[in-house]
Amino acid sequence: MTPPVTSPATAPQILARCRGLIRPALCRAVRQLHPWHGEITAFSLGWDGVDGGDVPGAQGKGVRQALAVLGAEAVGAKAGSAVAGAVAVELIHTFSLLHDDIMDGDETRRRRATAWKAYGTGPAVLAGDALFAQAVQTLADAPGGTCVPAVRLLAATLTDLVRGQADDLLFESRPWTGPDAVRPHEYRLMAEHKTGALLGCAAGLGALLGGAGRTEADALTAAGRHLGVAFQAADDVLGIWGDPAVTGKPVHSDLRRGKKTYPVLAALASGGPSATELGALLRGGLLDDAAVGRAAGLVDAAGGRAAATAEARRHLESARACLESVPLAPQALEDMLTLLPYVVERTG
Amino acid sequence: MTPPVTSPATAPQILARCRGLIRPALCRAVRQLHPWHGEITAFSLGWDGVDGGDVPGAQGKGVRQALAVLGAEAVGAKAGSAVAGAVAVELIHTFSLLHDDIMDGDETRRRRATAWKAYGTGPAVLAGDALFAQAVQTLADAPGGTCVPAVRLLAATLTDLVRGQADDLLFESRPWTGPDAVRPHEYRLMAEHKTGALLGCAAGLGALLGGAGRTEADALTAAGRHLGVAFQAADDVLGIWGDPAVTGKPVHSDLRRGKKTYPVLAALASGGPSATELGALLRGGLLDDAAVGRAAGLVDAAGGRAAATAEARRHLESARACLESVPLAPQALEDMLTLLPYVVERTG
Repeated sequence: MTPPVTSPATAPQILARCRGLIRPALCRAVRQLHPWHGEITAFSLGWDGVDGGDVPGAQGKGVRQALAVLGAEAVGAKAGSAVAGAVAVELIHTFSLLHDDIMDGDETRRRRATAWKAYGTGPAVLAGDALFAQAVQTLADAPGGTCVPAVRLLAATLTDLVRGQADDLLFESRPWTGPDAVRPHEYRLMAEHKTGALLGCAAGLGALLGGAGRTEADALTAAGRHLGVAFQAADDVLGIWGDPAVTGKPVHSDLRRGKKTYPVLAALASGGPSATELGALLRGGLLDDAAVGRAAGLVDAAGGRAAATAEARRHLESARACLESVPLAPQALEDMLTLLPYVVERTG
Repeated sequence: MTPPVTSPATAPQILARCRGLIRPALCRAVRQLHPWHGEITAFSLGWDGVDGGDVPGAQGKGVRQALAVLGAEAVGAKAGSAVAGAVAVELIHTFSLLHDDIMDGDETRRRRATAWKAYGTGPAVLAGDALFAQAVQTLADAPGGTCVPAVRLLAATLTDLVRGQADDLLFESRPWTGPDAVRPHEYRLMAEHKTGALLGCAAGLGALLGGAGRTEADALTAAGRHLGVAFQAADDVLGIWGDPAVTGKPVHSDLRRGKKTYPVLAALASGGPSATELGALLRGGLLDDAAVGRAAGLVDAAGGRAAATAEARRHLESARACLESVPLAPQALEDMLTLLPYVVERTG
């Protein structure tokens, strides 16, 4: 039976449509890079060379470019008006993956070597810089009078992004317990900067390039920021309890790495006997298999898993509320409301 | 005897005046960074902390900020209109030193540890990113209608900058001789991108923020780019024949490191018997003390030193010609014409 033509698009269909819309311009931007940086970028994007197709399973979902496209459509503009913004946020996302993988020492991403591992640290630093520059240039060269607020939003986002990454790195050297311990609200702010800022920027840029006023652009930006916090909380749950067959990471991965994530911080801040026992366990340093399992149980018992799930749900609700606080084109709003939970509630 | 009030300012006086004008805003920009990045930036700028004074001998001369100030004054604007541009180019210059030192593996700069050596590679990468973001934001937030062309010029400059650094790195793995050897004109283009672009951007931003039309801004930008090529050629001469007591580097430093610089490339391209002997010597890999001395002699005999000196003189002349091709305010023009040869003809 053929589905009725009015059946709503699924999230994968929405993402695929937006990726298809943006791909030609993203290709052009990558081809404008120095050939060396083009190659490293194509590798990072999961492309088979600058002019090649996709390497199966090596791409991101393209949530940021989709938010830019839907941001423009939501304010009644054509998707085409969002292209420069969508390209800019994808370039910035790729830049941040390149540099963050260096700082975090991560050797694999999407089941392939990271760029610094494949090409060396220096080339990966420089390719990231090239993407950063190309993103700013793409947006600055956007036609029309919308480029000033757009560049300002991108610049503020970049500042948030590096601030979030700095705090994330600094959290590593702070104690698990005591007066200098990382508090859940500090973690939330870090997530808003590190993950939310660029998602918010994507939706906001779409709106601004689509000619929206400040109210609509601010609401879309705020929605994207909440989505980022929700995503991070849900991702943190996966980082401990995700299925290794789906996530591609070992069971209890984040606990093995001693990573300070929302469920653990919320558990520690809850103050009960499980929190006390968890704190003692974590202060002992890197955990063996048995201790990791025990820590995961204690996080759960201290309410950390429930707190993170509630955090994700709460910020997803806030994102929805932001979208519904301004008048938006119904079809684009529907697509956004389909996309938001899909991004947060994924399983791997 | 008191000098007459009309005596022209010396280059050090001009530089000191501009540094004094820009320092408060530069301090504010550094204080706006994440405290961690502020500390790394202050260290890189040769400051004694974010709010501290100068560490003797650890500062740059501030040529870029001076060019921005003089660019504004040259088009009849107040120095104050150039502040955002001057701060942006100093931040970008510091960003590029931070990242380039990582790529080049340089462990000292201005007789101190480089940032990555003092703080680690990851923090130095991120501090560089923070400076990049702050530079774009500083300029994007500049008041008035001049911000669009200013941001566009900065974005194009950033693209040139990373392109130049990429070519410089790639030159290292190319052969000294044969069809794939680096030609002097390729080296010149690399220097224009890596060194000239930001100097040109500085002068051009000053003009644009000062309200100049495209003709004046383009002329000032072009002058700065020629200055960069001239500086690089002169710096390359110092890199081989500079006085170690002044440069702080060992004698024949660039030849010891096997660095492909203009005098060597020009010598190799000259085609005589000294060029042939030099090529054979360099193809043998890293040189010992005696071979380094012999190589320096061969570069000189093959005309490489004279070619680099002529290259510097020619581009300095071109910079002057650019400045004199448009009507500029006499005092600022005089200051620029004082500054240009000082930058190129320094001895260490």
